[in-house]
Amino acid sequence: MRLTISLDAMGGDQAPDMVVHGVKIAHTRMPHVDFLLYGDQAKLDPLLDQMPELRTVCQVRHTEQAVRGDDKPSQVLRNGRKSSMWLAVDAVARGEAAGVVSAGNTGALMAVSKFVLRMLPGIDRPAIAGFFPTERGETVMLDLGANVDCGANNLIEFAVMGEVFARMVLGIEEPTVGLLNVGSEELKGNDAVRTAASALRDGGLPIKFYGFVEGNDIAAGTVDVVVSDGFTGNIALKSAEGVAKMYSHFLRDAFSSSLLARLGYLLAKSALVKVKLRTDPRRYNGAMLLGLNGITVKSHGGTDPVGFANAVGVAVELVTHGFNDRIKRELERLKPPDDPRTQAAAI
Amino acid sequence: MRLTISLDAMGGDQAPDMVVHGVKIAHTRMPHVDFLLYGDQAKLDPLLDQMPELRTVCQVRHTEQAVRGDDKPSQVLRNGRKSSMWLAVDAVARGEAAGVVSAGNTGALMAVSKFVLRMLPGIDRPAIAGFFPTERGETVMLDLGANVDCGANNLIEFAVMGEVFARMVLGIEEPTVGLLNVGSEELKGNDAVRTAASALRDGGLPIKFYGFVEGNDIAAGTVDVVVSDGFTGNIALKSAEGVAKMYSHFLRDAFSSSLLARLGYLLAKSALVKVKLRTDPRRYNGAMLLGLNGITVKSHGGTDPVGFANAVGVAVELVTHGFNDRIKRELERLKPPDDPRTQAAAI
Repeated sequence: MRLTISLDAMGGDQAPDMVVHGVKIAHTRMPHVDFLLYGDQAKLDPLLDQMPELRTVCQVRHTEQAVRGDDKPSQVLRNGRKSSMWLAVDAVARGEAAGVVSAGNTGALMAVSKFVLRMLPGIDRPAIAGFFPTERGETVMLDLGANVDCGANNLIEFAVMGEVFARMVLGIEEPTVGLLNVGSEELKGNDAVRTAASALRDGGLPIKFYGFVEGNDIAAGTVDVVVSDGFTGNIALKSAEGVAKMYSHFLRDAFSSSLLARLGYLLAKSALVKVKLRTDPRRYNGAMLLGLNGITVKSHGGTDPVGFANAVGVAVELVTHGFNDRIKRELERLKPPDDPRTQAAAI
Repeated sequence: MRLTISLDAMGGDQAPDMVVHGVKIAHTRMPHVDFLLYGDQAKLDPLLDQMPELRTVCQVRHTEQAVRGDDKPSQVLRNGRKSSMWLAVDAVARGEAAGVVSAGNTGALMAVSKFVLRMLPGIDRPAIAGFFPTERGETVMLDLGANVDCGANNLIEFAVMGEVFARMVLGIEEPTVGLLNVGSEELKGNDAVRTAASALRDGGLPIKFYGFVEGNDIAAGTVDVVVSDGFTGNIALKSAEGVAKMYSHFLRDAFSSSLLARLGYLLAKSALVKVKLRTDPRRYNGAMLLGLNGITVKSHGGTDPVGFANAVGVAVELVTHGFNDRIKRELERLKPPDDPRTQAAAI
């Protein structure tokens, strides 16, 4: 069955070139997907002319307005209704597209999606959820930066949404959920994590709550879902990315430091390429904005066409699995509406 | 000139064996240092009997009490006055030792040091500062976990102390200071980082303030000093450690995956060993508790003798450079006592 994804063709450092080339890769992988490209027709048409095979699956929707990287979300909410980002999100609200992908300004995408798509019932704030390579496979991590300040109730919501996300997208039957903290003992951390932990431990939620995890547990793959506020989560993710980059840099240096080392690299190359693939950030591109009444996927702004195609893949996967309907059902199941006390205790 | 360092001989996962073996390495490197070993004589004497050369530089001070990893700081403050940790810190307060090293419970060490040594004038809270390997060399990072909740004034104090620390220990003339945040734009982040940034930018402090840095800037070495609250700093540090470990793991796997890869490893080995040394966590062991009226160094609890000897080296370095006197002078210089308005603006 065909499905349609709308794209903010002007979002991302190398847009719209990167987006159209990303669509080309996505089309090869997922020929059953149609695309609505929102952006400047004068720029998009020449690109599509070079790839005539895309014409059958792409429709260009012209707009001259685009959200810039330094636009404030509040500005975009006031003046951005004709921007490629807004129109692409609106295509989901209107039912024209089943999901939207943008590599543009994260804060603006969050604000616009929240305004246009609205939140799922019972969810206070959306969260950005992404994947992370670990020693054991993959871990879901959220929030990666949508909410700088989080209370215990937000963390609990993130835990619920993250658990469903991991179950659905990673296919893990009973994902374990950990709360990111500075130590594993009950007394460690700030009020928000301590309160959230005790609710997740004793609140009767049908979640396999592991307890607190520390920064090193992310890459170790100690749990399937790592929950944190957006400030810490964003910094932890980017610190990790920085170290990965540093390692690549050091290794490149090492392998080019002598003739012997260069020869050693050539011999070990096929094994080393596997390491590279296993940790390729493009492979993990495509963060889901959870909690919205619609599928919105944020691609890294600096990604390339391969990474963008992966983000499109995430959106298609979520649409195909009926992610939002399932999360709605989960949320209803978690909060028995008949007993306001249980409800309060659960949140 | 000889100097004396006091040691919490019972602190650390493998104490006291690890500590005494660490002293052996430290003694070889720094024969001018004497040690006061606080701990259980019945356990320490047999160890020292195996290393008679240490007897001339080690004095055992017997106590049966030891702080455990899960003791609450408040418990230790109430009941821990005879613990090896407390007595070792007290040796500095009494002037018997020039500095103290412990691989024990961080929270307890912080609380005991604060109580026994007191704070430097003008400093509200201590911070844990450590080193971090980067693409360009080394970066100082603080706070690594002493303060879970931090206001803007704490962050500003950390910036001042971290700057002096980098100048002194890394020997950088004008270290650049960055504030860890989720983005580089002025509007990003929470109230504490925004307020601190504007004070550091416009407060007239003689600090080279770079502005906000993101998680990936830590390993990139964008600035010499990375300042953050203790919650985020701890998680960022440990996330980075986790990724480093994951990389080592992946590489080990890759190099043992085939005969060719194994041969490649052998050829590149000497270059790869350099990468390992460059990122060896033991090399960066020894975090300084800044802001106390005395030199207290925290070693990683899980370290080995080599790492512990490095932590002793950090303490000796700080003592030798008269770190605390210099930081006191800097703090006085930063806060002209004649003008309370300037003082308020600076904090």
